[in-house]
Amino acid sequence: MQGINKDRLTESLALMGQIGATANGGVYRLALTDEDRDARNLFREWCEDAGMTVRIDDFGNMYGRRAGSEDLPPVMLGSHLDSVPFGGRYDGPVGVLTALEVVRTLNDQGIVTKHPIDIVNWSNEEGARFLPGLFGSTAALGTRAAEEALNATDEAGCSFRDELVRIGYAGDKANRPTDARAYLEVHIEQGPVLEAEDYPVGLVRGIQGQFWREVTVKGRAGHAGANPMDSRADALVAASRMVLGIRELALQCAGYGVATVGKMSVAPGAMNIVPAKVDFTIDARCVLAEDLTMLENGVVDVVEQAAAAEGVTVEISGDESYPTILFDTEVMGMIREAMTAEGLPVRELWSGGGHDAGVAALQWPAGMIFVRSKDGLSHAEAEYSSPEDIAAAANVLLRAAVGLAG
Amino acid sequence: MQGINKDRLTESLALMGQIGATANGGVYRLALTDEDRDARNLFREWCEDAGMTVRIDDFGNMYGRRAGSEDLPPVMLGSHLDSVPFGGRYDGPVGVLTALEVVRTLNDQGIVTKHPIDIVNWSNEEGARFLPGLFGSTAALGTRAAEEALNATDEAGCSFRDELVRIGYAGDKANRPTDARAYLEVHIEQGPVLEAEDYPVGLVRGIQGQFWREVTVKGRAGHAGANPMDSRADALVAASRMVLGIRELALQCAGYGVATVGKMSVAPGAMNIVPAKVDFTIDARCVLAEDLTMLENGVVDVVEQAAAAEGVTVEISGDESYPTILFDTEVMGMIREAMTAEGLPVRELWSGGGHDAGVAALQWPAGMIFVRSKDGLSHAEAEYSSPEDIAAAANVLLRAAVGLAG
Repeated sequence: MQGINKDRLTESLALMGQIGATANGGVYRLALTDEDRDARNLFREWCEDAGMTVRIDDFGNMYGRRAGSEDLPPVMLGSHLDSVPFGGRYDGPVGVLTALEVVRTLNDQGIVTKHPIDIVNWSNEEGARFLPGLFGSTAALGTRAAEEALNATDEAGCSFRDELVRIGYAGDKANRPTDARAYLEVHIEQGPVLEAEDYPVGLVRGIQGQFWREVTVKGRAGHAGANPMDSRADALVAASRMVLGIRELALQCAGYGVATVGKMSVAPGAMNIVPAKVDFTIDARCVLAEDLTMLENGVVDVVEQAAAAEGVTVEISGDESYPTILFDTEVMGMIREAMTAEGLPVRELWSGGGHDAGVAALQWPAGMIFVRSKDGLSHAEAEYSSPEDIAAAANVLLRAAVGLAG
Repeated sequence: MQGINKDRLTESLALMGQIGATANGGVYRLALTDEDRDARNLFREWCEDAGMTVRIDDFGNMYGRRAGSEDLPPVMLGSHLDSVPFGGRYDGPVGVLTALEVVRTLNDQGIVTKHPIDIVNWSNEEGARFLPGLFGSTAALGTRAAEEALNATDEAGCSFRDELVRIGYAGDKANRPTDARAYLEVHIEQGPVLEAEDYPVGLVRGIQGQFWREVTVKGRAGHAGANPMDSRADALVAASRMVLGIRELALQCAGYGVATVGKMSVAPGAMNIVPAKVDFTIDARCVLAEDLTMLENGVVDVVEQAAAAEGVTVEISGDESYPTILFDTEVMGMIREAMTAEGLPVRELWSGGGHDAGVAALQWPAGMIFVRSKDGLSHAEAEYSSPEDIAAAANVLLRAAVGLAG
């Protein structure tokens, strides 16, 4: 079996990157916008050109099928085509278009697999327009209620259901996937590890467990000159203690663990007024179950102790917690063999972000291949992975898919 | 000499509070807006009704003169009528209208002073529309260049000069004050001290020294899951260390000292992205010169050390520093005597905020009387001082003014 066509793959990625392109080399292609519709149309056209039949389910997920020689469940390959605002050209499309390149390569060589191969474009993976992310995969695979997904609205009040109809991608419930031999996803790493250690691609062990919280700290406003230090209930001083305490918690994890306060707002927010209210978010992720428990309990202790020490009150909201998802041993073994066959060194690592593959892993044997990210950047216009690294991942995907599809 | 008319003073304050009134009992009366014009017109009408001649200088400052029996410099009494957005009804008007009540009371009793008495309404004290504050007093008294003041623009691009013309308050340079026997200002405390210790009024020793800085912390954005803790340059973690370090500095002051981080913004500001950039402000105030030096140097050390420890870069901008201003011993003595004569206990305190009296003190013997603030609140719609406390301050002002005016 010959390898994939790097130039064709690179060109397809470049063409897809023109849809919703931003001035600084990124894309702005939110789910179910006109740009997303144009990307979907192009993907459908390419699938059909490659001899595939394309079906759409009731969440707008697109499945291009390359028939197998036997009546067996498909090997699914895919990712997503939507982006965050001012996102990059690689997060998502690399997975969809390496999958397409696998099919094109099999066509070139007239290889027929026993299992069909399905290429999937999941709707609204990013959740940038309709909260939360992983929308299409969770709804189609039954871990999110269908009505909840369809009734979700964006900030302008447009519903997911209406927008699907508007762009012509409201499909049939019967087209939801029912079974799969395996699910494989290529994705950019979105982190610095492969680059720092000089690996073109990585073998993903699973998706870190994670949780999100929102914290509101309430102190007391006051004139910055007229309020002695010992009379204050400064919400930002308290929040600063919390930020540092949350960081310390992450360092206490026995396994891999991270915690991030990424969003914070300070009110009233004037130079000469003692802050009365601070809102911030906590995003924590780790691999070991005991670390997840430690972090969940720890953030409560940290914020309550800091609040008590500073004379402010605090409220924690949100209870979304997700355990670590492990990828399938057989699928991981197939990817490992493929990497070795391609002459690629194998670096195993955890995914810090959620992916459709994690949703699929709850149903089917699943695995992921990471591609080295320049500067670890993602969700940014400067996001970049080289054509060589993406081609390497595509060749690994080709071998693993053929191995699984028989 | 009889005391002032509390009901008349209370009514005047209430009438003034109707101009630019907000739904929650505050005022929205930014400098040189239609609301400010209406407040000025009412003040002018009241001055003329009280037999005063009103002159306007080229910065829109208004001076109502009650003639004295001799050709001597005036005793000036006053404050400002502009407000911050959604401000209170007391910050400023209490000073202007207690001054007016002093003149009305002198009229009632036919008392003629040797020195004229000038009542002043300084333009744009708050600086909420045209930055910075203390605009009218500094420009008229020569500590701000005239052209700088007149060319200043608001966020919509309207110039101070054009807005003065528009509202009919562009006066004559010749009307700027040249000399004064003394300057007296009644103002709400805007802090919690008088209330906590149960004093209706306070004798102000001076204006605390202060400085402002703006700090920009630059780290590196990254995916909250995919970036290990030891690979991060988290701008918010660094900024949190700075906030706590700055608070510690204030506690190290030998005299009264405060430091506040009142404004902070975090970018890109997403729950799942490590903060790349944090901007915040520092407002620090103290009484002793050595504390001002310690604080100025200290904030540089604190932010640079935290930046180095967290692997981020930091820039500090702004160099505005103001030394402590001491009020005049003779004027303070006169206020102290007046308080005692009124049966009021004397509590001396420092002003944490800048005031026109501080500007005047650089030229003339000056003093201030503080009125107790409910809950220490100011620059808020809920700002409140009782009619009794304001009347007490007006009576102190009356005695002190007559003492100084001879």
